[in-house]
Amino acid sequence: MSFTFKDRISLTIFGSSHGEAVGAILEGIPAGYRIDSNLIQEWMERRAPGRNAITTQRKESDVVRIISGLNNGYTDGGSIALMIQNEDAISKHYDDLKERPRPGHGDLSLYLKYGEYRNYSGGGFLSGRMTAPLVAAGSIALQILRSTGINVVSYLEQIGQISSTCTAPEEEKIYELETRMGDSNADRQAKELILKLISEGDSVGGVVRTVISNVPGGLGEPFFDSVESVLSHLMFSIPGVKGIEFGLGFSLSEMKGSKANDPFKWNGQNFYTERNTNGGILGGITYGDPVEFRVAMKPTSSIRIEQSTINITTHQEERIRVKGRHDPCIAIRAVPVITCTTAIGILDLYLRMRSSDKGNSENYSGN
Amino acid sequence: MSFTFKDRISLTIFGSSHGEAVGAILEGIPAGYRIDSNLIQEWMERRAPGRNAITTQRKESDVVRIISGLNNGYTDGGSIALMIQNEDAISKHYDDLKERPRPGHGDLSLYLKYGEYRNYSGGGFLSGRMTAPLVAAGSIALQILRSTGINVVSYLEQIGQISSTCTAPEEEKIYELETRMGDSNADRQAKELILKLISEGDSVGGVVRTVISNVPGGLGEPFFDSVESVLSHLMFSIPGVKGIEFGLGFSLSEMKGSKANDPFKWNGQNFYTERNTNGGILGGITYGDPVEFRVAMKPTSSIRIEQSTINITTHQEERIRVKGRHDPCIAIRAVPVITCTTAIGILDLYLRMRSSDKGNSENYSGN
Amino acid sequence: MSFTFKDRISLTIFGSSHGEAVGAILEGIPAGYRIDSNLIQEWMERRAPGRNAITTQRKESDVVRIISGLNNGYTDGGSIALMIQNEDAISKHYDDLKERPRPGHGDLSLYLKYGEYRNYSGGGFLSGRMTAPLVAAGSIALQILRSTGINVVSYLEQIGQISSTCTAPEEEKIYELETRMGDSNADRQAKELILKLISEGDSVGGVVRTVISNVPGGLGEPFFDSVESVLSHLMFSIPGVKGIEFGLGFSLSEMKGSKANDPFKWNGQNFYTERNTNGGILGGITYGDPVEFRVAMKPTSSIRIEQSTINITTHQEERIRVKGRHDPCIAIRAVPVITCTTAIGILDLYLRMRSSDKGNSENYSGN
Amino acid sequence: MSFTFKDRISLTIFGSSHGEAVGAILEGIPAGYRIDSNLIQEWMERRAPGRNAITTQRKESDVVRIISGLNNGYTDGGSIALMIQNEDAISKHYDDLKERPRPGHGDLSLYLKYGEYRNYSGGGFLSGRMTAPLVAAGSIALQILRSTGINVVSYLEQIGQISSTCTAPEEEKIYELETRMGDSNADRQAKELILKLISEGDSVGGVVRTVISNVPGGLGEPFFDSVESVLSHLMFSIPGVKGIEFGLGFSLSEMKGSKANDPFKWNGQNFYTERNTNGGILGGITYGDPVEFRVAMKPTSSIRIEQSTINITTHQEERIRVKGRHDPCIAIRAVPVITCTTAIGILDLYLRMRSSDKGNSENYSGN
Repeated sequence: MSFTFKDRISLTIFGSSHGEAVGAILEGIPAGYRIDSNLIQEWMERRAPGRNAITTQRKESDVVRIISGLNNGYTDGGSIALMIQNEDAISKHYDDLKERPRPGHGDLSLYLKYGEYRNYSGGGFLSGRMTAPLVAAGSIALQILRSTGINVVSYLEQIGQISSTCTAPEEEKIYELETRMGDSNADRQAKELILKLISEGDSVGGVVRTVISNVPGGLGEPFFDSVESVLSHLMFSIPGVKGIEFGLGFSLSEMKGSKANDPFKWNGQNFYTERNTNGGILGGITYGDPVEFRVAMKPTSSIRIEQSTINITTHQEERIRVKGRHDPCIAIRAVPVITCTTAIGILDLYLRMRSSDKGNSENYSGN
Repeated sequence: MSFTFKDRISLTIFGSSHGEAVGAILEGIPAGYRIDSNLIQEWMERRAPGRNAITTQRKESDVVRIISGLNNGYTDGGSIALMIQNEDAISKHYDDLKERPRPGHGDLSLYLKYGEYRNYSGGGFLSGRMTAPLVAAGSIALQILRSTGINVVSYLEQIGQISSTCTAPEEEKIYELETRMGDSNADRQAKELILKLISEGDSVGGVVRTVISNVPGGLGEPFFDSVESVLSHLMFSIPGVKGIEFGLGFSLSEMKGSKANDPFKWNGQNFYTERNTNGGILGGITYGDPVEFRVAMKPTSSIRIEQSTINITTHQEERIRVKGRHDPCIAIRAVPVITCTTAIGILDLYLRMRSSDKGNSENYSGN
Repeated sequence: MSFTFKDRISLTIFGSSHGEAVGAILEGIPAGYRIDSNLIQEWMERRAPGRNAITTQRKESDVVRIISGLNNGYTDGGSIALMIQNEDAISKHYDDLKERPRPGHGDLSLYLKYGEYRNYSGGGFLSGRMTAPLVAAGSIALQILRSTGINVVSYLEQIGQISSTCTAPEEEKIYELETRMGDSNADRQAKELILKLISEGDSVGGVVRTVISNVPGGLGEPFFDSVESVLSHLMFSIPGVKGIEFGLGFSLSEMKGSKANDPFKWNGQNFYTERNTNGGILGGITYGDPVEFRVAMKPTSSIRIEQSTINITTHQEERIRVKGRHDPCIAIRAVPVITCTTAIGILDLYLRMRSSDKGNSENYSGN
Repeated sequence: MSFTFKDRISLTIFGSSHGEAVGAILEGIPAGYRIDSNLIQEWMERRAPGRNAITTQRKESDVVRIISGLNNGYTDGGSIALMIQNEDAISKHYDDLKERPRPGHGDLSLYLKYGEYRNYSGGGFLSGRMTAPLVAAGSIALQILRSTGINVVSYLEQIGQISSTCTAPEEEKIYELETRMGDSNADRQAKELILKLISEGDSVGGVVRTVISNVPGGLGEPFFDSVESVLSHLMFSIPGVKGIEFGLGFSLSEMKGSKANDPFKWNGQNFYTERNTNGGILGGITYGDPVEFRVAMKPTSSIRIEQSTINITTHQEERIRVKGRHDPCIAIRAVPVITCTTAIGILDLYLRMRSSDKGNSENYSGN
């Protein structure tokens, strides 16, 4: 059921890179939440291709049509259907690729799974184009979360070996800079690097950091639906993600307990720790600190530099030069995708908590 | 639904650290697979506490009772119910902790989620004890996978800053060494470190590496149920896991595409690449290379060294000295847990593939 | 998750009676099945309103746009997205109803569940209009089932107290007659009745009988996903359904075991019974006989005759005369809806069987 | 995933008729509900075999062991594991049946689905014995529902052609009479009939009627998870159920709308209707009236009278005389099973409503 993420809310995406449209059905949203369609569109712009010199030149207006689920600007309890037309697909770029899978790309996987029936044009439904409906639906989840006080902010912490000095990200500043690095110095360096890579026909990876603030304690479910499980499941759905760590993550594996453990404190309203080494999650469940995680994005696999590959029919080695218009660094456009997709997961856990904790709430005041 | 992992197969665990028993219900396993209960027990021994000087001294025989689902040694299509008695719980060690949550542990989360109704003795259902049913059920999945030729092997690549030189792990060698590092030199160094930490009352983290070999191409589902999504969801269910990366993972984020991309080759039977930079998964789906991933485990949070914490009722700072018997390095006993839990996820994807690809298989020979 | 039916396949519907469109996302269909869009359209015509004098006069062309999931006429493994525009909604008919719920209709339920945010125009998402996407998606499932030899046929066994003499329904004959009764004598009587009811502003109920032939033995899952459970779940999703019985159903409750039991026989290829008293299902699972069930549809609740109701705000009794265009007997247009929705359930169970029985099939020849 | 019923709460059952034990895992119950284990046991007694002359003579003490999920008498948020030993299985009665499926029973289905690997002793996991864990788990759900004011009561409306005059069932009176008919005259007649059937080696069917009172309006989800869908799904999981109808059910199919429609009224606190023709559900959702439904149970298929069947290996007709101890009328012991299983479904919908309606509840007072 791989196009559906589902527990308390359900998100189904559809469409393909070079088909008529892409879209999403978001279900399980309670009635009565006010949704501003301008804000949906603002997030679409942040993800949209062709808006500047350092992303892909495919031009898409990416206007979201809301087919159902909103009534006079409020959610009506029905399934929210969203559609985004594809306007600038150039399928001929893919004729060469039918028999010759791009290294580092899902072309060969698609062939092995679906054989002759595969939809390979533009990467079919394995395309980064499918993140457009993720952003459309996720930005609705984000609006609802923000109405409760919870916030999600992501920024690009690293492009190749260039690091941002930003640690307390502010959304407006992040989207003022084309690289989303939240640091004008890093932004300038990164743009230089990317323009150089474009001229070379190469690409580069990056790391996106996300901070979820004002998370109530008790969010997340024990064991299989820990906050980390739910968020990592969603993050690895996003094309190009190859790693995730919460809090200090891999660094924790080198540390002693006496150093990694973070004493709990009380600030008069909430519990917190000073270093948040565990990224706000212990036992899979939040306790008051912000949830923090880092996502590793690999370099775009579609590059203009000539590469070697295998012909899937003849099994002979062949040379390939990938045409089409591709991002030199997909991590840049992944920033809003990660924010909005995170919002889906957190809203789901929030609605679960609302259903499962009421029994308690009449009996204790801990939460 | 956090105690259930469910798609084609369903795994539900139950019990708690200091209750009567822990157990698992494994469902969706087709009838007709031969299951050797000695092999289940062998895996339980590999995870069991109290077997040597470098793990916790809690003694549990960890004998698995098979209540249903097997008939004359074969799966019968019904739900497989497994039970493991708790024999050596010492609850008094936890009396001190009721009001004073252990730093780095889920005690505070449990309180915030369940209030006065929480089951805190031994960590309740957030305990590492819950990995016993994961191993029992997962070892059944592993037997089935191995009957199809797919194998899963894990080992401890790193304890603190000590690294194993092992790269092609063999199961027998791994379990000959108490540290599971697959390298007798690293094993000796690590044991020294751990004995020193025990004497200091401290703990340390580690990194577990897993290799899944003979994976058929086409395994995994596009988007939300990518191989990475399914495996990371399961891995973050295991207590102490704070990061995961597939293939080169975080290193990919620093690389150029021209270096990260791996040309496809053909070995006469399968497609493969020479460096497997993507850990055997592209577009969320396998293409022939082994699936490879690394999991970061944090140091055990329960340490004897005195720490500061907060009283949950008075909100005053207090000092705490954690009693009870705890692993100095949970990553060691996590090795079989990760192997068996991985088998659950891969078997699930395997059964999905069997259901979804038959339409194809009569029409093409790619897979 | 009420707009999604999900196990091996997933069906999500969206839209509302008076919104821009209705549609469906069908997921989990293996790649490589040939789908004829003319056949989809043929089923849409069979359900479509405004095609004759005995159904509602709302005119909808009900053309299905296939947004994704098909590639050169074959399923491509992606999510199949289907859209149907709404063309002839007249919302003003519903202005009177906002405060005054129609007796026998879901208006009051909708108000109690969603309050002021409810979408009440045309019944919102509780409308019979939502059965259009059920037919579109279900007719795809039906094409796939038929390619395996399984068939589903439904007809109207009863309208009010007029009964059809048809017992072995043939699809072409059923759709030649406007009442779908498969019996020209009953058809004539029923049309007379309906025209009379139209003139009186009244409506009438009916019973739809469905026969699924060539069902393989072993279809269905024990306990919670019995064939009866899966089909009844789907049938009660269809507006107006109030009862279901399999085989002799309620009559069995009056019978002795010695009379109800049906001896098994062997016809050289399959097991069968002579009277099929259990509707082809025993222990929730098929054994060779056709699956047979009857569905009770209530009379259309929207009638022109003046009725009493309650004002939801003032709680005063008021008189109501329902405007709008409504079917005098929804059971007629329910016939193709039931056929196509049944196909969804049976295809789901068929794909589950394919995944779960292969372990067996190499070992025994019983199935 | 047929042993698991799952949405907001999840219920997994395990075991088999002649195995060591049967049991259930109930998950998703919020922490903090007080559960009285004596009440669980009282419901087990109501279902238990061998308690009087008119049910099966198998003797089972049916004591429920609570393995986890309760802490000092309150739910603790973990998975509630329940186990019931099997004490009086006599497997030799089934030796004769291996090759010769009982008419009207699931033996042949089991063979066709699982082949030689099937667990046929006592019907394996298709046995009525599996309703013991349904009652254990369901009685917990019932306790929680009753703490909110919602009640579920079932009684036997009909045995064969003997009807109860009871219409407003009271639980205590129902369980005073061995037939559960709530009417001492019908009870006496029914007992005579059953004793006669026992002497003849025959059996009889029945109809169970259930009334759910104090149901809040707005319970149930539109379309696929209507109250009718959820309850019918669960009811058809119970062995022997062949039909269900809500409100007037099949009778509605013969009625005119003008007669079937029920005007809404207001009693000062709730909406209601005078005749409740729709069984408290409109548009799949409750509006204030009690939910009412009737379930048709077929006669026990295992009868002592000699019958004809087919040998599954030789395909020859053979004669069979079913040994073992069987209920002459399973409908009697189905009464508490239906009550408790209904509670599972209603509690699930109740928890969904709690999660999905809060957005509203701050904004309107309709519910």
